[in-house]
Amino acid sequence: MAALATIMPSVSKSQVVIEEFQSKALAGNALGDPTLRKVPIYLPPKFDEKQKYPSLYLLSGFGSRGLRFLNDGLWEENIPDQLDRLISSRSVRPTIVVLPDASTRYGGSQYVNSVATGNYEDHILELVGYIDGKYPTLADRDHRAIVGHSSGGFGALRSGMLHPDIFGLVADHSGDKYFEMGFKPNFGELLRYFERVGEAGLAALLQDPGAGLRYGAPHEVLSLLATAAAYSPNLKAPLGFDLPVDLHTGAQRNEIWTRWLEFDPLEIAEKYVDALKSLKLLYIDCGRFDEYNLLYGARMFTEKLRALGIPFQYEEYDGSHRYMKHRYDVSFAAISAAMPS
Amino acid sequence: MAALATIMPSVSKSQVVIEEFQSKALAGNALGDPTLRKVPIYLPPKFDEKQKYPSLYLLSGFGSRGLRFLNDGLWEENIPDQLDRLISSRSVRPTIVVLPDASTRYGGSQYVNSVATGNYEDHILELVGYIDGKYPTLADRDHRAIVGHSSGGFGALRSGMLHPDIFGLVADHSGDKYFEMGFKPNFGELLRYFERVGEAGLAALLQDPGAGLRYGAPHEVLSLLATAAAYSPNLKAPLGFDLPVDLHTGAQRNEIWTRWLEFDPLEIAEKYVDALKSLKLLYIDCGRFDEYNLLYGARMFTEKLRALGIPFQYEEYDGSHRYMKHRYDVSFAAISAAMPS
Amino acid sequence: MAALATIMPSVSKSQVVIEEFQSKALAGNALGDPTLRKVPIYLPPKFDEKQKYPSLYLLSGFGSRGLRFLNDGLWEENIPDQLDRLISSRSVRPTIVVLPDASTRYGGSQYVNSVATGNYEDHILELVGYIDGKYPTLADRDHRAIVGHSSGGFGALRSGMLHPDIFGLVADHSGDKYFEMGFKPNFGELLRYFERVGEAGLAALLQDPGAGLRYGAPHEVLSLLATAAAYSPNLKAPLGFDLPVDLHTGAQRNEIWTRWLEFDPLEIAEKYVDALKSLKLLYIDCGRFDEYNLLYGARMFTEKLRALGIPFQYEEYDGSHRYMKHRYDVSFAAISAAMPS
Amino acid sequence: MAALATIMPSVSKSQVVIEEFQSKALAGNALGDPTLRKVPIYLPPKFDEKQKYPSLYLLSGFGSRGLRFLNDGLWEENIPDQLDRLISSRSVRPTIVVLPDASTRYGGSQYVNSVATGNYEDHILELVGYIDGKYPTLADRDHRAIVGHSSGGFGALRSGMLHPDIFGLVADHSGDKYFEMGFKPNFGELLRYFERVGEAGLAALLQDPGAGLRYGAPHEVLSLLATAAAYSPNLKAPLGFDLPVDLHTGAQRNEIWTRWLEFDPLEIAEKYVDALKSLKLLYIDCGRFDEYNLLYGARMFTEKLRALGIPFQYEEYDGSHRYMKHRYDVSFAAISAAMPS
Repeated sequence: MAALATIMPSVSKSQVVIEEFQSKALAGNALGDPTLRKVPIYLPPKFDEKQKYPSLYLLSGFGSRGLRFLNDGLWEENIPDQLDRLISSRSVRPTIVVLPDASTRYGGSQYVNSVATGNYEDHILELVGYIDGKYPTLADRDHRAIVGHSSGGFGALRSGMLHPDIFGLVADHSGDKYFEMGFKPNFGELLRYFERVGEAGLAALLQDPGAGLRYGAPHEVLSLLATAAAYSPNLKAPLGFDLPVDLHTGAQRNEIWTRWLEFDPLEIAEKYVDALKSLKLLYIDCGRFDEYNLLYGARMFTEKLRALGIPFQYEEYDGSHRYMKHRYDVSFAAISAAMPS
Repeated sequence: MAALATIMPSVSKSQVVIEEFQSKALAGNALGDPTLRKVPIYLPPKFDEKQKYPSLYLLSGFGSRGLRFLNDGLWEENIPDQLDRLISSRSVRPTIVVLPDASTRYGGSQYVNSVATGNYEDHILELVGYIDGKYPTLADRDHRAIVGHSSGGFGALRSGMLHPDIFGLVADHSGDKYFEMGFKPNFGELLRYFERVGEAGLAALLQDPGAGLRYGAPHEVLSLLATAAAYSPNLKAPLGFDLPVDLHTGAQRNEIWTRWLEFDPLEIAEKYVDALKSLKLLYIDCGRFDEYNLLYGARMFTEKLRALGIPFQYEEYDGSHRYMKHRYDVSFAAISAAMPS
Repeated sequence: MAALATIMPSVSKSQVVIEEFQSKALAGNALGDPTLRKVPIYLPPKFDEKQKYPSLYLLSGFGSRGLRFLNDGLWEENIPDQLDRLISSRSVRPTIVVLPDASTRYGGSQYVNSVATGNYEDHILELVGYIDGKYPTLADRDHRAIVGHSSGGFGALRSGMLHPDIFGLVADHSGDKYFEMGFKPNFGELLRYFERVGEAGLAALLQDPGAGLRYGAPHEVLSLLATAAAYSPNLKAPLGFDLPVDLHTGAQRNEIWTRWLEFDPLEIAEKYVDALKSLKLLYIDCGRFDEYNLLYGARMFTEKLRALGIPFQYEEYDGSHRYMKHRYDVSFAAISAAMPS
Repeated sequence: MAALATIMPSVSKSQVVIEEFQSKALAGNALGDPTLRKVPIYLPPKFDEKQKYPSLYLLSGFGSRGLRFLNDGLWEENIPDQLDRLISSRSVRPTIVVLPDASTRYGGSQYVNSVATGNYEDHILELVGYIDGKYPTLADRDHRAIVGHSSGGFGALRSGMLHPDIFGLVADHSGDKYFEMGFKPNFGELLRYFERVGEAGLAALLQDPGAGLRYGAPHEVLSLLATAAAYSPNLKAPLGFDLPVDLHTGAQRNEIWTRWLEFDPLEIAEKYVDALKSLKLLYIDCGRFDEYNLLYGARMFTEKLRALGIPFQYEEYDGSHRYMKHRYDVSFAAISAAMPS
């Protein structure tokens, strides 16, 4: 790979440092995915090492990773440009923004520990330690936010539930929840794909997802397989994980589905009431026409939050699952507003 | 309507009589749908009133009715032409084929009794009595078959379970079963449609489905509403029926879903073991790439039949939910073969 | 085929007689398509053989034929029902409506004479003679209308240009014109289909279009082939006709395209000024979002009519190419209004 | 924008320098687009300023610019990674690769000079001067290649025709040619969009294409407008350019279309025979199922090259317009092979 790093910037401008982070958490991961990860770090304009800054971890969705937040587009800002704008307009406090890479060969880890893919939950935590050790962060939970979209929103919310001591502010955009409507409707597509390609075809797709997608494998099929690798790994199974449906009959395999539900925020919220109550901010939003049905998870989850007496901020907007970058304007500002000065 | 009936045919050719049947079962139906129904009756070539013929009831799917089996198409046979061919090649015995109309304003009744739509199960039974009274049928269950596709396949199979004394032979093509995969994946589309049009929009669609479909209402949405009217009617509910999901949150309403499952052949097969065992023929088929996931219901159901010791004939074929008329070649022949002479 | 004809109707109701017409014009047609054609004839309510009625010839579009106007549909009227309603509300005069079959194995003849398909222009004319001989029509051009949609609209307009002595009133709904935009944009799809299936694949599609469409041949590809058979037949060419593009390079073959343009109403209007001026009614309409770009042909053609001093009635409506049956309400009424009493 | 530049690399690795180039050619461009352009420069591994390197200009397609060649993707290489791989395997000589930005607010300039958008042809030429002045290039036409895909392929081929003294090697992947099939089939979509949004809607789309695309404007519509701005600018016209169709009637405006054809390589090849013959390499390829019909332009153009006695290398591959990055493996290697050592 060509060296694409950042020179020591002028103090006035923001800068992006591409950290090459050697993960211990991912050592020996089952897929043989790299343990060295490129992690872009956004340092705000007028960055001064002697000052202390809040930090924000921005988690990408399925099929993406931190580097892609830097990608150029003709008609939309990338994340550094968006942060520059928000900070310069004082909507957002100068913040160190970390763009982790929790991708796997299958496309995504769901930010959980799995024997089939690797310990990505641990990886995010080790990254926090590293960042706090190297960068001038306000290294307490009240000044450390975690944000994401789609799978990244799931990862952010989950971090708030499991690690409220680490992350005191959470923003979950269109995150996976209410798996009943979020994942199940795609099982048919997985089954039809299997009907066409057989077990060898699934294995081939997992071996080289890029080629598979290029030649027409549906994105949702790969996403379901990756999710199974995250939620129901089984190293004795041919693919390294179990699926919650029988690929021949389509019968639901309840013992596997139960394992999935242990990750569904809607199913497990009650266990994390104290954690969620302790957050300085719990921001959730979703598009009203989300094509993965995630609006309904958001509504059910926020109803449950209300019933449990957990404070939160919730917004819906006209839009679908994609094209949501403008929503970071809202969540980043809400985070800055909710942080103690 | 223009008079479209049949002259007294030459004895050598088949003929279609369009019966105008005055239903008692549908009297006072909640939708105000007609009680007078046009029911085409196919009489085979060389029809002779002094002979006795087997009878076959062919049930149409959602959005259709018996008259549509007569429709002309440039590149496909209609049912009378298909029967002529099958009978003339001696694949099928000369048979009286009845093409009922169990349609409602919503598109279909699922062939069940419902206070929201009408008593369509009873209607099929009253029709049998009428046909046997007027036409020279072999008026016993061993010479009376019931066949259908999609909702019609469901209706045929259900008739075999509930009324094996009436129908001794059943052919179910791609019928609804395993509702978990057959109906649930479409709930999201219903919810998004509701999100756009609101309760008044759903009511308008139910009031004039033709206009709704013309202006872009998804077919699956209307189908789900019609199914709810069949399986979970509730005259106190604003729409006349309950839905198995909360239209705002998408939460599954288990008490309603349970009512649906009481119609799912996969859920209730055990109650009808004797009935199903008594059938002279239980034929089931499905396309391998059925886009409504009905293949999986077919596979699970036939597995259950095997486990219960119920004989059946099962076929899968390359194809999707549509373009299945050629499959009647197989089922009609199987019926003729299974009937005692 | 099962006998599907009409009993002697009660005088009060309308009736449909299915004429079985033995064509001389189609004798020896190159495709071996039937010369015996089923032609439904609609006779209005209170039909009285001693009276005289206007006649209207309704031409179907590509892939259809007169019989399909009788087809049943749950949510839309067929033509006899629509006529019954329009006549009973006095919007339309009692009229004898003829539903010709000018279909070919390829799907449609464009209502022209072609050595590759048959003499379908002549066929319509011979049918007029037959109808006038057998039914009590007002057998003059001022009481004889011709109407159609899509290819049928083309056929109707062309009839008004070539045979104004026969047809004095014309209604053209979304008819083919301005071939530059109506046909050319689909050439790419034809070429890509050829790239996949080769010359043998085209021949197979032409041999059995029903199977081809079932297995995924695009409708537009078959339509272009059928149009070439109509406009640029060549019995020495392998397929029986020439295409206006080279199938390998996509190069336009101008000598063939010129033959097509000789059928484009927009190109040839000037030749038929007297004919068009002589019409009692020239009605044209098109949907504003016609996906075959036929709106633009309609606009250009009516601009030309205006420039040439030819009277016409023109309407645009919100809608696409399909779902236009309600427009017959307008054209049939305009025809009745324009006919001398 | 955050500083995203490159540190002085280790000599062993390749590096990407993001030049911020102040264009004179684009000064005062009509759209007010930036004259300062970020131009990534790829320097090969073991780059040594004292050596001399061939140079290659890689032109992006519509909606893109040089920076996007650096974008990260989970399942595909970006251009620097691809070059690293090709150079390390000795398929490609160490080369300086320049990634220009010839984008406009509308999405692309077609790499031509236009009073409506700017002098982008000149811009590429001024960039060559700048690069040769600053970087250790073999600054002669035999060691300077130009390559692109889609609009970029068009720009590369055009550069070879107009500036063979500058660019001695050309690779054109799926470039625009045979505008008759490449552009015209999309006119209908433009017209229907205009029918919905009117002139004000077109102006709004041109003012903020990002918002337009987000809310559903078809990509092809914007592309046609941008192309008109490039090929038929007219500062007196309301939009700043003329369209080759009348937006109301769809009538072809021949005087405008003629202006477009002056850019069609297929139309003008004869004028550039000497230029094209002088090239060290003229490489052309296209996917067999290119959905913009560009295969046919490629076939016709190469037929013409053959007739004119112009040497070229031509390949077709299974694939469509997208997903063609692997084809740079072929063209880059062909360029290295064709360059004198």
